[in-house]
Amino acid sequence: MKILLVGASGTVGRAIRQALSRHQILTAGRHSGDLRVDITDSASVSKMFEQAGRLDAIVSATGNLHFGPLSEMSAADFRVGLENKLLGQIDLALTGQHYLNDGGSITLTSGIVSAHPIRHGANATAVNRALEGFAAAAALELTRGQRINVVSPNVLQESWEGFAPYFPGFEAIPAARAALAYVRSVEGIANGQTLTVW
Amino acid sequence: MKILLVGASGTVGRAIRQALSRHQILTAGRHSGDLRVDITDSASVSKMFEQAGRLDAIVSATGNLHFGPLSEMSAADFRVGLENKLLGQIDLALTGQHYLNDGGSITLTSGIVSAHPIRHGANATAVNRALEGFAAAAALELTRGQRINVVSPNVLQESWEGFAPYFPGFEAIPAARAALAYVRSVEGIANGQTLTVW
Repeated sequence: MKILLVGASGTVGRAIRQALSRHQILTAGRHSGDLRVDITDSASVSKMFEQAGRLDAIVSATGNLHFGPLSEMSAADFRVGLENKLLGQIDLALTGQHYLNDGGSITLTSGIVSAHPIRHGANATAVNRALEGFAAAAALELTRGQRINVVSPNVLQESWEGFAPYFPGFEAIPAARAALAYVRSVEGIANGQTLTVW
Repeated sequence: MKILLVGASGTVGRAIRQALSRHQILTAGRHSGDLRVDITDSASVSKMFEQAGRLDAIVSATGNLHFGPLSEMSAADFRVGLENKLLGQIDLALTGQHYLNDGGSITLTSGIVSAHPIRHGANATAVNRALEGFAAAAALELTRGQRINVVSPNVLQESWEGFAPYFPGFEAIPAARAALAYVRSVEGIANGQTLTVW
């Protein structure tokens, strides 16, 4: 398969690349990769797909969120996650569907905070649930055997040092384990699902 | 109680107003009401709350979405629901929390498409799920007995004529029945919940 991997240089992205290494991988990212893309800029997303050409799978492991106390959160803060992790990834799906071969798949990334809210994480819960809802609805409209799923990983062992205070009692997982769910989405038959890894 | 009702002139808004008529209701809307507000404009939201003063409850029954085929949907289309029904209502909660008395409540509106996707409804499912996730997470950070819930109504009998083709087999409900869930949120003890009406 020819697979476009957006967010390839991140912790999950690197693990996905390894897990899917038997395929042809085109890497994409903001500052590195075969292709450069700013997912918050529709023109940049379109240009990336033009350069990538026809694809068998689109995998996204990217997107920023706002973290902060609810009592200090503004609409502008909240917009960070909406523009970046949410609309950025959804644009990858909306634009990417037109470059996807028959039977191709789209895999986006949410996260455990979707189902298990954390302190300062209202933006993350909202954005992650929106992504999961989008995939559930979009799967019902895709044609030609195309599929879409979301992977929702637990906090990563590789990121644990910085994130531990915000995830008390969460059981961090290795990125390599999260990567398996992306393989399941790309090579399996799941459609409209949230593949949780925890 | 002193209650701010945003979207008071809509079908659900009018039913909510009647169901909560034993309270002091301040109505707000884009083109009518005691107070005028454009929920997509933070300055307008702030001004409305300044005019409203201290509140015991904030109820929102407003917000636009994009409906259209996934195959023709753009990021710009998708942004309609994000800026309006999603961020507009979330701004009502984020800004409104600072005007809410101890024990006060915030009630936002999602919709059945959150749980039951419809054709052309990917934006609606995503936005509605985000609202429900926001309330679930935000409830855990609110203090002083403050609460937040989301009401998710089925399609309304009053709107059935226009919406019927998009909701095959859905059992339309009277707006007065949807309004009961808002009363439950305002006068009851629910917190972080999605109150479904179907």
